[in-house]
Amino acid sequence: MVVKLTDVAELAGVSATTVSRVINNYGYLSKKTIDKVHSAMRELNYQPNSLARSLQGKSTMLIGLVFPSVRHPFYGELIENLERKLFAKGYKVILCDSEKDPEKEREYLRMLSANQVDGVIAGSHNLNIDEYQNVTLPIISFDRFLAPGIPIVSSNNFEGGKAATEALIARGAKNIAIITGANDTASPSDYRFDGYKAVMDAHNLETNGIRLKSDSSELLKQIEIEKLLKDESIDGIFCTDDLTAVTVINIATRIGINVPTDLKVVGYDGTKLLHQLAPYLSTVVQPIDEMCDVMIELLMKRIEDADVILEETYSLPARVSLSESC
Amino acid sequence: MVVKLTDVAELAGVSATTVSRVINNYGYLSKKTIDKVHSAMRELNYQPNSLARSLQGKSTMLIGLVFPSVRHPFYGELIENLERKLFAKGYKVILCDSEKDPEKEREYLRMLSANQVDGVIAGSHNLNIDEYQNVTLPIISFDRFLAPGIPIVSSNNFEGGKAATEALIARGAKNIAIITGANDTASPSDYRFDGYKAVMDAHNLETNGIRLKSDSSELLKQIEIEKLLKDESIDGIFCTDDLTAVTVINIATRIGINVPTDLKVVGYDGTKLLHQLAPYLSTVVQPIDEMCDVMIELLMKRIEDADVILEETYSLPARVSLSESC
Repeated sequence: MVVKLTDVAELAGVSATTVSRVINNYGYLSKKTIDKVHSAMRELNYQPNSLARSLQGKSTMLIGLVFPSVRHPFYGELIENLERKLFAKGYKVILCDSEKDPEKEREYLRMLSANQVDGVIAGSHNLNIDEYQNVTLPIISFDRFLAPGIPIVSSNNFEGGKAATEALIARGAKNIAIITGANDTASPSDYRFDGYKAVMDAHNLETNGIRLKSDSSELLKQIEIEKLLKDESIDGIFCTDDLTAVTVINIATRIGINVPTDLKVVGYDGTKLLHQLAPYLSTVVQPIDEMCDVMIELLMKRIEDADVILEETYSLPARVSLSESC
Repeated sequence: MVVKLTDVAELAGVSATTVSRVINNYGYLSKKTIDKVHSAMRELNYQPNSLARSLQGKSTMLIGLVFPSVRHPFYGELIENLERKLFAKGYKVILCDSEKDPEKEREYLRMLSANQVDGVIAGSHNLNIDEYQNVTLPIISFDRFLAPGIPIVSSNNFEGGKAATEALIARGAKNIAIITGANDTASPSDYRFDGYKAVMDAHNLETNGIRLKSDSSELLKQIEIEKLLKDESIDGIFCTDDLTAVTVINIATRIGINVPTDLKVVGYDGTKLLHQLAPYLSTVVQPIDEMCDVMIELLMKRIEDADVILEETYSLPARVSLSESC
């Protein structure tokens, strides 16, 4: 015998609507009501079936998360945060690691178009804008321009880049280089470079630095960094991500450059993992928790009302956290 | 007009069975055939609908991954590897971060019981064995005992623990302490401790060390580690995970203990991320790629035949990678 929602309602002594609200985590519910319904669901071994709901043209309660790499500390922390918050709202997440694989990203978009998820949060773009534009499901973008009408949530990359550079100058650095990714005009992360440049220009200091391609091998990146560090005039480096900043400090230490006496270093991202592994690193901390809150709130709005008007960008403040490296 | 599988077959000039095989990545297919079918699918904008397949009592092409924390470098690398390999077989993954949340793990198991995924790979166990025993879907376990009949894939924790301890002794350490997690008899990771103990006993050396609870705060763990390090007789430490090993090295450096002259340190896990961030760390490298291959192969066998007889444990060799810290 299949247990029905009305059986749960009867045992819990509440209405069927209330059971549905508990299952979908929707509307105001007292803890007492939630507990009663959960207890009745357990007793009857009731399985709310999202596939069945999907058949009725309703929600699948699945959200797609499309990010370049789950093993990157920043995306790992972001994905974990999103998953936890979406779970609390009754959603499960489908994970798509899209790094360097446009065909994979395209296949996920096809899946979305087939209405197999209720919405998507994407921080990746191997594809051209047209392909994202053709997806009719709700999408929120993290830190990337995907297509017109898809809101972008990010840290304030320009202000973050400025703050990092100002911190280096405040500690006495003058010949400050930047190490950042390939120039990609579709990526707001490049505003970190613009923030650096704005501060250097304002202080009449010369800009300098290298751009590392994301598909370069680690070894090649290290060779380029070592070459830059052997330019003895450099006394400060702003790295637009923390992994590169730690690599810079490791190489500097190996070739006898003292951090921070001879070289001051500031990174960007500020994950808990890097704080644990490299507590000496000064960095710009992205507000991961708040960014996740905003992305989910916007996505829920779009799911409830496909035509809701949203801003083009939601830029949240990043803060500098100083430690021994600067 | 809904595009059907037979439309794709006609345009590609192949049979419907071949199209189905391409979609499900099943059987021998030439690259030419795959390309023809993909090209026809694109031209017609054909969406293979896994929900529709699920309705017909067939596969959902979804696999659940239940792990404690996606932002942990080891699980992040493992999940990324599993996701890539499962995608190549036509599966999408649903991610469940289960850390410290039995109710969440239980909710995912309920979802599995409702036949919403084809199978599960789980490296978590907040729950008692009964609850896993009642799940009838195919499950493969990573490094944890879940229930009788669920095969466990892991690195050879006992041999790994032995190898780490032997490496410390070979480099001249005698007073070797171990830093490991809480004693948990359901977890094969504790065999790393047994390996350490076996080598120490064989050399007539005294065992020593601390167990850190996984739910302790980072600060409390650091205080305990610092207390251990201040015992000046200790000249070697085996940490059963790399994050703790890096924390030990950071604290030692801060309080003036030279690594490796005064203190030799070996970790466990050997992820690419830690190799990048802490290239100086000697560690026991788990064969992540091979373990993922084995887990997926076993899961596919169980999906094809629920009654297939599998071994209880599949233990893969781990290798010591020596660097500056030992």
